[in-house]
Amino acid sequence: MKLLRVGPVGHERPVVMDAAGNLRDIGEPEIDGAFLASGGVERVRDALEHGALPVVDAEGLRVGAPIARPGKIVCIGLNYRDHAAESGAEVPAEPVVFMKASNTLVGPYDEVLVPRGSVKTDWEVELAVVIGKQARYLGSREEALGVIAGYAVANDVSEREFQLERGGQWDKGKSCETFNPLGPWLVTPDEIGDPQDLPLRLWVNGEQRQDGSTKDMIFDVAEVVRYLSQFMVLEPGDLINTGTPAGVAMGIPGQPYLRAGDVVELEIGGLGRQRQEVGQA
Amino acid sequence: MKLLRVGPVGHERPVVMDAAGNLRDIGEPEIDGAFLASGGVERVRDALEHGALPVVDAEGLRVGAPIARPGKIVCIGLNYRDHAAESGAEVPAEPVVFMKASNTLVGPYDEVLVPRGSVKTDWEVELAVVIGKQARYLGSREEALGVIAGYAVANDVSEREFQLERGGQWDKGKSCETFNPLGPWLVTPDEIGDPQDLPLRLWVNGEQRQDGSTKDMIFDVAEVVRYLSQFMVLEPGDLINTGTPAGVAMGIPGQPYLRAGDVVELEIGGLGRQRQEVGQA
Repeated sequence: MKLLRVGPVGHERPVVMDAAGNLRDIGEPEIDGAFLASGGVERVRDALEHGALPVVDAEGLRVGAPIARPGKIVCIGLNYRDHAAESGAEVPAEPVVFMKASNTLVGPYDEVLVPRGSVKTDWEVELAVVIGKQARYLGSREEALGVIAGYAVANDVSEREFQLERGGQWDKGKSCETFNPLGPWLVTPDEIGDPQDLPLRLWVNGEQRQDGSTKDMIFDVAEVVRYLSQFMVLEPGDLINTGTPAGVAMGIPGQPYLRAGDVVELEIGGLGRQRQEVGQA
Repeated sequence: MKLLRVGPVGHERPVVMDAAGNLRDIGEPEIDGAFLASGGVERVRDALEHGALPVVDAEGLRVGAPIARPGKIVCIGLNYRDHAAESGAEVPAEPVVFMKASNTLVGPYDEVLVPRGSVKTDWEVELAVVIGKQARYLGSREEALGVIAGYAVANDVSEREFQLERGGQWDKGKSCETFNPLGPWLVTPDEIGDPQDLPLRLWVNGEQRQDGSTKDMIFDVAEVVRYLSQFMVLEPGDLINTGTPAGVAMGIPGQPYLRAGDVVELEIGGLGRQRQEVGQA
């Protein structure tokens, strides 16, 4: 099932895409932690099967992020061997964890802003995981897969100078406004099959820059969720960005960082496609 | 003015402490971003002066964190020279920024849990700043001081092995459950005077471990807020922990990290006192 949110910023309306591609009102106020934790996905599935959901005329409506602002966005760094190599970093012995401010979340076609003073704004196509149940000290991979509400495409936009050259921790280059396009859809696990066999691709101005597969993750989705739950309590509606494959600007000769006017397109198999025009903050 | 929240976890009721020490209902649903951004502090001040707020019988009620769960908790690392030295770190050239999961927030007298597998759980008394207005690319120190809703005591509890020895970024050792006691009060700036002249103290099992002053911050409150707004959008209700002076377990001979049964007490001049018993997750 594909859930999404359509409408102006701050006034998005949650809908579900049916088999014919129609958008239908889900009869719930939000796609958020309360919705996910209370069996909202099952309610929508049931209502959809019984033909109980009215079609919405979404012609011309903006597509927002498919979930409301999460309680936290947790990110895994250097989780693909080829990206660790291009970053000049060792392959990590255990997951590298950092965080991103929740108010970076925007829709999949919203403008991405180069921050003021930035000369190294970069892209990262990533498989995003949305948590559906509270996760605390999970004991197994199976338990970890059991708390996942669904998957989505994320662009973990990053400012490399802020992240790596301005003293200290990466978060400084990860939390600028508009730095987390998400969507278009939240896709439920039953529809995605094996999350470790999804192609990820990204283009800038039509030129392909990233071409990877979730097969090449160092720590797979189940391990990432299990691992994180040992260090923090994951809650329904939380978002995890699971890392990016090679092909970011930082790793390309000439380092073609993003500038206002650039167009970034990205997709993951089964999860849809994003397109962002780049502006200047 | 001193604002606080009393009642069971998840059902706290916002109140104000009057000059006689009585707690009075503020007639607002929450102390959160919406309250702060809409002039809630001024409404409460006005109602309090007009004697319009009923006294609440708070006998025996738990004290919660003085603000609802924030959109983000941003922390400044190594912001006191003596703490940088005891950590074996250089004095930073610009603020070191990291983040802490928002669901670490607990009340000032709530239990702090040593995480499973932890042997290096540490304390940090810190001046916490609560943001009252949206802050984006602030142009001056004066603008920065103008977005501050108030101040509070925070214990930026930290797991040093998770933070420093488990690969990558500090956030991994900062986001464990119960790791951010806050309060008892949110104190408005008019009542606190100069935020750069406040004593900070912390005791473990009655033995004083930290004894500092906000005079010794490397980057003061105005600079921290101005600086952060260049890298992220600060929103009403957000929390900033501004760093800790020397005297954490990591820097003391024998490294007396916290264990279940320990008692941590901490205070900042004008902002009140906390007391946490340490338990085991």
